[in-house]
This record gives sequence, C-alpha cells and structure tokens, in this order.
Amino acid sequence: MITKTSEVRVRFAETDAMGVVYHSNYLPWCEVSRINLISSIGLSYKKLSEEGYHLPVLEAHMRYKFPARFDDLVEIKATIKDRPALRVKIEYEITSDGRLLATGYTMHAFVNKSGMPVKPPREFIKTILDAYDADEK
Amino acid sequence: MITKTSEVRVRFAETDAMGVVYHSNYLPWCEVSRINLISSIGLSYKKLSEEGYHLPVLEAHMRYKFPARFDDLVEIKATIKDRPALRVKIEYEITSDGRLLATGYTMHAFVNKSGMPVKPPREFIKTILDAYDADEK
Amino acid sequence: MITKTSEVRVRFAETDAMGVVYHSNYLPWCEVSRINLISSIGLSYKKLSEEGYHLPVLEAHMRYKFPARFDDLVEIKATIKDRPALRVKIEYEITSDGRLLATGYTMHAFVNKSGMPVKPPREFIKTILDAYDADEK
Amino acid sequence: MITKTSEVRVRFAETDAMGVVYHSNYLPWCEVSRINLISSIGLSYKKLSEEGYHLPVLEAHMRYKFPARFDDLVEIKATIKDRPALRVKIEYEITSDGRLLATGYTMHAFVNKSGMPVKPPREFIKTILDAYDADEK
Repeated sequence: MITKTSEVRVRFAETDAMGVVYHSNYLPWCEVSRINLISSIGLSYKKLSEEGYHLPVLEAHMRYKFPARFDDLVEIKATIKDRPALRVKIEYEITSDGRLLATGYTMHAFVNKSGMPVKPPREFIKTILDAYDADEK
Repeated sequence: MITKTSEVRVRFAETDAMGVVYHSNYLPWCEVSRINLISSIGLSYKKLSEEGYHLPVLEAHMRYKFPARFDDLVEIKATIKDRPALRVKIEYEITSDGRLLATGYTMHAFVNKSGMPVKPPREFIKTILDAYDADEK
Repeated sequence: MITKTSEVRVRFAETDAMGVVYHSNYLPWCEVSRINLISSIGLSYKKLSEEGYHLPVLEAHMRYKFPARFDDLVEIKATIKDRPALRVKIEYEITSDGRLLATGYTMHAFVNKSGMPVKPPREFIKTILDAYDADEK
Repeated sequence: MITKTSEVRVRFAETDAMGVVYHSNYLPWCEVSRINLISSIGLSYKKLSEEGYHLPVLEAHMRYKFPARFDDLVEIKATIKDRPALRVKIEYEITSDGRLLATGYTMHAFVNKSGMPVKPPREFIKTILDAYDADEK
C-alpha cells in the first residue's frame, strides 16, 4: 500500500450558489493529491509527461458525504492499494477538521503523446514496486 | 423512462495540456443536460431553488472512452430510468459525431436551504410521475 | 468593424457562494464569443491551431456592472474595431435580457507551437481585411 | 502599503491545450492571494462574509508576459498601495522561479447580502488603516 495525504485550502472560485464546493471541483483536488503521491515515492509526473507519457483518467467516482465550504482546510488522502498492472487505481478519502467529506477513486492507464495506450514506463513500475516492497517490510 | 439530449460546444477553457477535455469538465455538461431534462417535463430547477430546494450531487461516476477536443460538438443524453423516490438517479451518455465519449451517472436527493435532506417537493414528484405515465402509454 | 453576438446559458458550475457568476468565468464566455466571431467571417480557430498557430491572450480586462445568475441567458457581443496588425484587440459587451452585465476586452497576438511570436497567417489577415472592406461598403 | 506574497502549485486542471495555464485561471490565484493579504493584517474574509458582507470584483485586469505551466510553483504578490476608501484596489505581481509571468489588479467595493453597495465595515477600515500606519512607521 502506498499512501500520501495532501492539503488544499478551499477557494471562493470553487464554491457554487448553494454556498458549498461544486461537486466537480473535488476532482482537481484528487489530481493534486495523486501528483503528490507519485512525487512522494520519487517519481515526477511532470518528467513522465515530458518523456511523452500521460496517465489519463479512465474512470472517476466520488461519493459526497458532507459539503466543503470556502476557506476550509481540506485533506485528501490518496492510496494505491493494489500493485498496479496495466491499470492503476487510486483511492481518495477527503476530510476537513476530522470530518469525512467525500470518498472516491480514479482509474488510470498510460498513453503516449498520440493518446494510444502503452505499457507503463519501466522506471514507473520499478519505483512503484520498490515502494510496495518497502511498505511491506 | 424520461430522457433528453442536450448539446454543448467544447470550450478551449475546458481542455488541458494533454490537448483534450480535462476529465472533471464533463460533469458540468451533465449538469447542463439534467437541468434541460428537468425543464423538458415542465419543471424549473431555478424555480425549485428559489423555493428553497436544492438537488445536490450525492454521487458521481464517469467512465471515459474517447477524449473530447476543442470545438467538438458534444451531445449529452440524460435519462431517468427508475421512478425517483427519495433519491433520483440520472444516467448520461456523452457522444460526439456518433462516437461514444463517456458514460456516467449522478445520484441526487433534495435538501433545503440549510442543506438538510427533505422530501422532494410535491410538484416535482407529481410532474415527474406524470411524465413517466405519459412515456409508458 | 467586425462584430458577432453569441449566447450562453449560465451553468450552476459557474456560480459562486455569493449566488452569482464568479468573475473569472466571464472570460471563457468571451472566448466562446471570439471563436464565433472568427468563424462568422469564414475562419476556423480549430484549423489555425491544427496548422500550428495559437492566438493567446496577452491582456484581459473586465468591468462588472451587474451580476449574472444561474440559468440566465447571456449575450456576448464581440467586436474588432481596429484593423488588426500584429496585435488583435477584441471588445466585449455582455448583456442579459437587455441589461448590461459587463464590458471588457482582450488583446491577442499570434504565436507558433513553441509559443514564439509570429506574424499572423496570411489567410487570417486576408479574410479579416476582406470582412472589413465588406463592412465599409 | 500593505503587501503579502502567496504560493500556488499549478494544477493540471488549470492548463489548456496550448500546454500552458488558461488565462482566466490566474484570477483565482489572485483571489487566494488577496484572501491571504486580508488575513495577514488580522482580518478574515470568511468572517466578513458570515457577517453579511461581500467584496465582489468590480474590475479585473491581467497582462500576461510569460506562460505558467503544469507543476510550476507560482508566487502571487498582492499589494494595496492606496489607503482604501469606498473602493479597494489590489495589485498583483505573479512570478515563478524569479521570472515575471503576469501583472494585474482587481477593484472591489463592499456589498451586503442582497448585493447592494454598503460602506466598508468599521472593523475592516480600522484594521486596514492600522496596518498602513504600522507600515509607515
């Protein structure tokens, strides 16, 4: 299991006329969180994309429990539970001040610059499996 | 079954550095589509919200098949398959030029201005069940 | 003078916790409007960008007079007043139901795929000057 | 003069198909920066809005010099140069790694919950003038 918690402060731009964060705006927070997760094991999403790889979202799911509001400090815990194969599943737990706001997951696969599915880059697989092994010790 | 198809033209603002529409930006299209679905049976989401009701998203799911790009004309078909009870499930099929881009659903329940769950307004239930009956004839 | 009016319907996603449209969300409407302006004289921004040209925003200015709200039908009138040279200035008048919501402008120049400033493509200049001449007759 | 520098990390969600940050997405960064500026002198925008005050944007201007890209660490320096009266002008200088990306300003005035212009709350004026006096000593 590989896990990493990131923080965002809710922007007024992210709220809607219900006075709470608009539901789709949780997904960029998940992005922030998975980029940090990837960085935390020594990989760089920026470098991967400069090398011509992208890791687009194939599937996204969010379940909303309690609304986030302007200026809330939100924690997004991203976790990779299963050893990634061709697909990588990342799970999210979003909380604020100890209260669960939302849970969800995204599913990803590597593509090249033309958007064609490709095998994960060797460095990605090696680093992520090393992180798994380190976690299990 | 109640169904309605809406169109949006992809904005440059909705694309990302992969050259395609950023995944969370499909959700506002679903919103456009369900507002139109509600209007198509004679209800007004604007009027509902002025009367103190909101229909927030409890759950959202999207599966991405093929990317939308800048300037694409996108069709979003919103469907309510099951007679809505306390919860309303709306399903989406997103296509462009006959090609399936994504499928998904959102789950909703009514809340009042303070965000507390409430029964659907009587007019909503009556109108939506009438639309069902009309469809089944 | 070249001018074109476009319409957008305000999305809930575009509102904020003040109950009105968040100020930065007027800029994508201006984008919709200038893309349509360019199309209206027979050019395609999509084709230009496929040929390796982009027309990024060098400067943007908005003055907000009256707030747009969810579900409002908004008209954005885009106008090129001066014959474009290296820079193209586009002015906007944003109204809803006859009421002035905002005015503004954006300033643009052509760049190539690497983001380096380049002369406007010959076809762009010819078409836009023809549109001017047609307007003046 | 009251000034405060804030940092944001560029999200992939904020980029567009030119590979750089979409121009309107600089404005929420300015919002982050002015909320922090207000906090830095001991005021809370959240508290102000709970008391029924809002400080909407009357005018926004941005001049773009060099594009921000995914994962860049961006600094936004917000400055109030003139003692605020009915209107408050905030100026921004946006840099990354020492390079100037953009400059701009926003103009604000207080409104009440109904959106009607009102005098700035007494506490706001007192605190901001105290901050001025402290700066001038």
